[in-house]
Amino acid sequence: MTQRTVYVNGEYVAERDARVSIFDRGFLLADGVYEVSSVLEGKLIDFPGHMGRLKRSAAELEMALPWDEKALLTIHRELIRRNALAEGMVYLQLTRGSAGDRDFGYPDTDTPPTLVLFTQAKSLVDSRSGSEGIRVVTQPDWRWARRDIKTVQLLYPAMAKMAAKAAGADDAWMVEDGMVTEGASNNAWMLTHDGTLVTRELSHAILPGITRAVVLEIAEALSLRVEERAFSVEEAQSAKECFVTSASSFVTPVIAIDDVSIGDGCPGEVARRLRAAYIEESRRRAI
Amino acid sequence: MTQRTVYVNGEYVAERDARVSIFDRGFLLADGVYEVSSVLEGKLIDFPGHMGRLKRSAAELEMALPWDEKALLTIHRELIRRNALAEGMVYLQLTRGSAGDRDFGYPDTDTPPTLVLFTQAKSLVDSRSGSEGIRVVTQPDWRWARRDIKTVQLLYPAMAKMAAKAAGADDAWMVEDGMVTEGASNNAWMLTHDGTLVTRELSHAILPGITRAVVLEIAEALSLRVEERAFSVEEAQSAKECFVTSASSFVTPVIAIDDVSIGDGCPGEVARRLRAAYIEESRRRAI
Repeated sequence: MTQRTVYVNGEYVAERDARVSIFDRGFLLADGVYEVSSVLEGKLIDFPGHMGRLKRSAAELEMALPWDEKALLTIHRELIRRNALAEGMVYLQLTRGSAGDRDFGYPDTDTPPTLVLFTQAKSLVDSRSGSEGIRVVTQPDWRWARRDIKTVQLLYPAMAKMAAKAAGADDAWMVEDGMVTEGASNNAWMLTHDGTLVTRELSHAILPGITRAVVLEIAEALSLRVEERAFSVEEAQSAKECFVTSASSFVTPVIAIDDVSIGDGCPGEVARRLRAAYIEESRRRAI
Repeated sequence: MTQRTVYVNGEYVAERDARVSIFDRGFLLADGVYEVSSVLEGKLIDFPGHMGRLKRSAAELEMALPWDEKALLTIHRELIRRNALAEGMVYLQLTRGSAGDRDFGYPDTDTPPTLVLFTQAKSLVDSRSGSEGIRVVTQPDWRWARRDIKTVQLLYPAMAKMAAKAAGADDAWMVEDGMVTEGASNNAWMLTHDGTLVTRELSHAILPGITRAVVLEIAEALSLRVEERAFSVEEAQSAKECFVTSASSFVTPVIAIDDVSIGDGCPGEVARRLRAAYIEESRRRAI
């Protein structure tokens, strides 16, 4: 199998040589943040949005980010070029680095952070889940309280996805106090029978999705009525449509929640329109 | 500086060469668990307890642990020997390894886990905090809901400790619904004015401390009255004594909570007795 070229702390290396110190705080303490930017036709989608959120995540954690958007764009593009990536994702992870030992306390601010990037080839536009929709199961939202920061503390989302798989579903929706927070790796949406799009308002409870923000813009451009508010599992189950948004799944219809079919059990019309419009808009904006 | 010898996946290497793949799930997804065993006079304290908890953590996460206690003891002892460790800790981390790419879903069960161990020399018996006590500040408990599993998702405890430091304190106590859960890296205790030791009962809300369990045994042997129940910040602030227990801090007096002095503001007598008894018992049990 061809080795990907990946980026680790200033160097482009073969993936088998891509290693970090065991003392890296990303490995020992989950002291790291990340972003996933999608690529269509070799170009980056929503790149400024992802880098803006990266900057915010780092700032919330007082983590240094000594690369500006231009420098990060150069690395992303170089990886796309070296790996001849036409469609897929570029994953970026930033950690607080290491002072050479394990300590809860943050190291001195001159400690270099760790920056890692790699590509993942994947068919995004033509995907089974995009055309056929996905089935989700609900799981209690047992994650930490600052889900607005995109950290690598992803064990629980992984557990939730495994629980979904064990239940014969494709993904999980997180539920707190009876209300849907978001999907295990995406934002959750529903369309009411009176034609209102609903997605949870931004707070510490959910990730401020970059795709979510663009879909909100598109919905406005399409003159769709939108409400940003929490909704219950029951409300979603009896909605006209449900779907999720994320960088790598774009807009993906949800056709069942806990084995309750949504609408007629097929991908909804509005979800399909938004998916098509998002892909069109993304191709136009791609850099 | 002399390089420590550390253990990484079957090999003893110099710490500067101790590296893991960037695709390791411990680095990408915080999909890892750990233990810290203390060492006195070159011998391991509470080793069976720590390895029992490691086994439980792995089982809760369906993570393979293809080393039995004897094999793990051999590695611990070899590291102590190679690093001439008289007093300090041996840190062990187990992760789900990697199938060579990033994916939320667990890899096939035949994917080798990652096992990393290293030593940290530290004066444990004669420590300033042990003799003078520590000041803590309260922080909202914003960690995930399965704190009984000792995972590497330690970003929030690190943030809480930094908040404590910024407030001129030594450590943080986590508070949920007005009740103390535990310290950022230790279990929390108080002694009421009628002489009852109180520490929170085991549940998903706190780590089942190994030192906590031994101190409970010692308290029983000393005929102290013990209640395992939650207590509020106010109750702790007006207690006769407060202290914390952990593998590396043994029993450490808490002399202030949010700038409110506990008792007379000095380390309490019962905490001092328990610390001395724990150290004595640990020396006797050390292997």
